[in-house]
Amino acid sequence: MLSNNVYIIGAGETKYGELWDKSLRNLAVEAGLKAIENAGIYSKDIDAIYGANGLAGTINEQENIGALIADFSGLSNEGIPSIRVEASTASGGAALREAYLSIKSGEYNVVVVGGVEKMTDIHGSDIIEKMSSILDREWEAFYGATPAAMAAIIARKYMHDFNVEKEALAMVPVNDHLNASKNLNAQYHNKLTLKQAMDAIPVAEPLNLMDCSPVSDGAAAVVLASEEYMKRNKKEGIKIIGSAIAQDYLSVGSRDSIYTLKSTKLAAEKAFRRANVKRDDISFVELHDSFSIYALLELEDLGFVEKGKAKELVYDEIKTGGRIPVNPSGGLKAKGDPYGAVGVGQVVEAYLQLNEKAGERQIKNAKYALLHNMAGTGTSSVIHILEGY
Amino acid sequence: MLSNNVYIIGAGETKYGELWDKSLRNLAVEAGLKAIENAGIYSKDIDAIYGANGLAGTINEQENIGALIADFSGLSNEGIPSIRVEASTASGGAALREAYLSIKSGEYNVVVVGGVEKMTDIHGSDIIEKMSSILDREWEAFYGATPAAMAAIIARKYMHDFNVEKEALAMVPVNDHLNASKNLNAQYHNKLTLKQAMDAIPVAEPLNLMDCSPVSDGAAAVVLASEEYMKRNKKEGIKIIGSAIAQDYLSVGSRDSIYTLKSTKLAAEKAFRRANVKRDDISFVELHDSFSIYALLELEDLGFVEKGKAKELVYDEIKTGGRIPVNPSGGLKAKGDPYGAVGVGQVVEAYLQLNEKAGERQIKNAKYALLHNMAGTGTSSVIHILEGY
Repeated sequence: MLSNNVYIIGAGETKYGELWDKSLRNLAVEAGLKAIENAGIYSKDIDAIYGANGLAGTINEQENIGALIADFSGLSNEGIPSIRVEASTASGGAALREAYLSIKSGEYNVVVVGGVEKMTDIHGSDIIEKMSSILDREWEAFYGATPAAMAAIIARKYMHDFNVEKEALAMVPVNDHLNASKNLNAQYHNKLTLKQAMDAIPVAEPLNLMDCSPVSDGAAAVVLASEEYMKRNKKEGIKIIGSAIAQDYLSVGSRDSIYTLKSTKLAAEKAFRRANVKRDDISFVELHDSFSIYALLELEDLGFVEKGKAKELVYDEIKTGGRIPVNPSGGLKAKGDPYGAVGVGQVVEAYLQLNEKAGERQIKNAKYALLHNMAGTGTSSVIHILEGY
Repeated sequence: MLSNNVYIIGAGETKYGELWDKSLRNLAVEAGLKAIENAGIYSKDIDAIYGANGLAGTINEQENIGALIADFSGLSNEGIPSIRVEASTASGGAALREAYLSIKSGEYNVVVVGGVEKMTDIHGSDIIEKMSSILDREWEAFYGATPAAMAAIIARKYMHDFNVEKEALAMVPVNDHLNASKNLNAQYHNKLTLKQAMDAIPVAEPLNLMDCSPVSDGAAAVVLASEEYMKRNKKEGIKIIGSAIAQDYLSVGSRDSIYTLKSTKLAAEKAFRRANVKRDDISFVELHDSFSIYALLELEDLGFVEKGKAKELVYDEIKTGGRIPVNPSGGLKAKGDPYGAVGVGQVVEAYLQLNEKAGERQIKNAKYALLHNMAGTGTSSVIHILEGY
């Protein structure tokens, strides 16, 4: 391994939500320019752009997103390359990792990573059909499977095998909404009582509306820089000390265990080894809780608690101030779930927290952040561990 | 710059064409397994997969292609990460470059790059609408612009300003078809007379059917390896000595000159500087001639001849045996144009040529290959220069 460290020197994001007045390109440009301004760099400093997006081909009939973003950010005249990275809902984390590797390779010094998704430009429930394009179209989606249905199947089996009550799942959105109430960029600011979380209308039993992340528009961007750039400009920044990605079968039905996120386990092992920190060192985690059940599985497969025991963490330990604070941003349920933006938005939250700029939702003495971005039902997991300074 | 060289140790591809009996995943798996077998490696050797695809979201309603390919290649059990790189018709070259950077970073030793496109799974001329998703949907495609229409506008202005006859354009498909007649994997094997090329039905004047690449299904894959891997296994391979990508405005209307491919110029300068070879050293080029006009512009903007003078090359010099042989594979017009596969397929051709395994179409003493993969109307260009051994 070469020792060219990679730093995060700027971050920006749009509000997440149903943003009827903003298009795909508007969102991407807004987040990108905020991050660039925040980093205090100019277009001539930028070596490359990595754009993360999950569904623009399917929803917006717009491919070639990388070029679109660069063009409308006013960066095309410089010839700055801009490509799109797609790994379904893990596109953001995957793009971050590509940018990280590109700097580690010695090829680039300053790279912008942006994630964007515009999900509300489509008629009503047709979005579910579009979202299902992240599953296996021919063997899952064609037969009616949706992301929510797959999560429900996993939840039912998990709850049965480990004697987990619905209440444990409901604590996940309760925590998310409490945190999001302190995040101006979050899609929802309302606090959620346990009763409200339990009584919401069913989506795919045992999951109800409060177990499922919303349909969101939004974008996030961060600026990465090399060790050389930091030294030359006498800058300090958040350091990426661990980066890993791993894969599982696309079809849930092919996996050895439907409630073990093997991709998360493998990526976590690699990332922790690389970062050389322990689980106990982590100040907070941003988890990919597109469905409440996944938060429980993820806490287990990341190694914070044994399989089947996440129910012991979700009541108190995942709160800010608990043993392992989860989703200070509000998470996918309450901050929002604009597919391609999610993984990059997690970095924005970590950037704020590790710089002690998270305001009301600041986690005290935050030093190490773990970011977990997952594709669909656990097909891919991308994990980054960041260190503050 | 770090000096971790990157080699190509295996290659494979499907036939290109209207492959009604093969799906997106069938094609990807066929090419990938051929490349892996050709490289003589096992799944345990593979560190990562990069999948290139342009339009599966739009055409096939299938995102998350990276995972799909890994899964159906039987590689998911190993946890091998697989992401998709999308840069429109330059997706293949862009994926190759990401794989190259990932090895250069020291993170991976063996990486598979696959490109795939399944374009015929759609009703008749609807494909044109889908293909137009690589343009600016809101400012170009919405008003009826198509890739062919944009190429026609560029051609008309170029022919007017430099006094170029239609015949010069027609020589491009004539050369492509002659070469493809010696390539079993090509979509077309018929030779084309100049008269046939001139008299074909108009598509977007001055371009006729023979000036336009076809709608194609197909896949290609290559295996890349690090210097460390080569030493450990005492292997020899084709070396990537130059890799560069550059960008221009997405909209043709925003550019300074509509017949100067700025992205190609910028990428060529970088790639030649990095490779430390001269134009005259290049044994052959694989050009992104999705429309005949682009072959002329590319020869100029790659630096093989002055702007407006490509007409001096297209009659004899681009032939096998000429000064600068173009598209021994048959090029996009006659080998075929499956978007995401094109850039990777160019590497397959170079791999054969530089290993002296190109059979009837072998270029004598081939030592250096230049591969030019371009997005849409010139939005992005990715250039790789390879060295044989």
